[in-house]
Amino acid sequence: MDHPFDLACALKATGLGQYLGHTSDAYWNMAGPFGGTTAAVMLRAGLLEQPGGVEPVALTVNYCAALVKGGFRIGVREMRRGKSVAHVSVELTQGDTVAATASVVFARRRDTWAHPVAAMPDVPPADRVAPIDLSSRPLPWLQRYEFRFVRGAMRTQDQPFAEPQPAHSTLWVADVPRRPLDHLSLAALCDVFFVRVFQVRGTAVPAGTVTMTVHFHASAADIADQGSEPVLGVADAQIFTRNFGDQSGQIWSRSGRLLAATTQLAWYKE
Amino acid sequence: MDHPFDLACALKATGLGQYLGHTSDAYWNMAGPFGGTTAAVMLRAGLLEQPGGVEPVALTVNYCAALVKGGFRIGVREMRRGKSVAHVSVELTQGDTVAATASVVFARRRDTWAHPVAAMPDVPPADRVAPIDLSSRPLPWLQRYEFRFVRGAMRTQDQPFAEPQPAHSTLWVADVPRRPLDHLSLAALCDVFFVRVFQVRGTAVPAGTVTMTVHFHASAADIADQGSEPVLGVADAQIFTRNFGDQSGQIWSRSGRLLAATTQLAWYKE
Repeated sequence: MDHPFDLACALKATGLGQYLGHTSDAYWNMAGPFGGTTAAVMLRAGLLEQPGGVEPVALTVNYCAALVKGGFRIGVREMRRGKSVAHVSVELTQGDTVAATASVVFARRRDTWAHPVAAMPDVPPADRVAPIDLSSRPLPWLQRYEFRFVRGAMRTQDQPFAEPQPAHSTLWVADVPRRPLDHLSLAALCDVFFVRVFQVRGTAVPAGTVTMTVHFHASAADIADQGSEPVLGVADAQIFTRNFGDQSGQIWSRSGRLLAATTQLAWYKE
Repeated sequence: MDHPFDLACALKATGLGQYLGHTSDAYWNMAGPFGGTTAAVMLRAGLLEQPGGVEPVALTVNYCAALVKGGFRIGVREMRRGKSVAHVSVELTQGDTVAATASVVFARRRDTWAHPVAAMPDVPPADRVAPIDLSSRPLPWLQRYEFRFVRGAMRTQDQPFAEPQPAHSTLWVADVPRRPLDHLSLAALCDVFFVRVFQVRGTAVPAGTVTMTVHFHASAADIADQGSEPVLGVADAQIFTRNFGDQSGQIWSRSGRLLAATTQLAWYKE
């Protein structure tokens, strides 16, 4: 049986650089699908146009309008293809509404001098951290991930905190059901952290990501080695001001390799 | 007399969302103009299409091909305009070559609950830190900024280091000649840190930014308060692997406000 993530990323080619997709009930969020699957399906459309051996290096997704349940069109335009780097623009539309735009940098990467500056935080292994119980949270997309918080667990109270709380979270996270990691799920995992403003304020104000950027660092060997085991996610924020708050995050492999790094900006009300 | 930065950002409207610009010799880099001015002129084209009171919130610029000296065209497309947020796509072309693409999120921002999570590093004021002497460095764009390094000064030796050095830099930086801060110069300042791979390796391997993202946090009051005084820039990196290295950065006001945060990914050879 197909994994719900693969169904959410399913595309039918309808012409040169033109695809048809469909929103996924399994990844439905409050008002629209989980942004991670939107990022993944747009990345997939770009990937389908690449020759073999080419990998995504960077992805920026701009969430322009809430998607409604149903079909959508994705158009892919190659802006520039150099010797080793290609730039692609992607648009996701429903009727006349542009619901999301994306830019993707692809490259044929080679082994070079390398230097892992940052190190994975020292955490207990995933199987020593209990997953949180999300059975009282009816949002479908939350059921599609297993969250094992090491620090900064999801704060679920309905009253705002008297004082802002830390924005930081560290958690092991995996697809439900388990699915071997690839660049698509890696992109989606970069959006798996709950909007930081909820963590800091302790209450779910109206909020939504307006733009997310992902830098891919995982090699094919890193991805193969990871398999379908949980990755370690780390998320934090620098500022909340005048309707917008940021988020930075890292996705680490179980063996301590930096698979992807991400930043996003989320709108919030009041 | 016009400031060279304003000349670099000068645009002539040629039609609906269509502009003509010209590369700036004053901001010339090794092979093409300083990426900061490319970011600024694309942001400017997007801003020219916005109603009053609308500010940039996020900008992603993809550097697709080196610009050659001469004219360029910029096309601006509004992808979506919501009640308070607008999404715009920008393309910069020379002949048939797309040299850069950008996406900009604009918004009419309001005062809301706010929380400055991160704090400016504790550093001596700019006038207590001597600017570095760049007279031996003929690159024009380097002459357009005054760099006062607090930590992680530009490493200028021609031999690679035996061991990788820290990627971090903290510096006061200002336009030369001085110019009051605005969103355009703020975008350019986000690209003012030398490619981190030079800092870490100690040698200028072939390298270039492929994508840069800027999140704007400065209010009009922050910008007015800053005037033409130096801002504090902080830059670091997380990883260098398989031809690509990242960079994160912050631009702080003299009074300790986070004006902008940025990430970028740069290609490097070998």
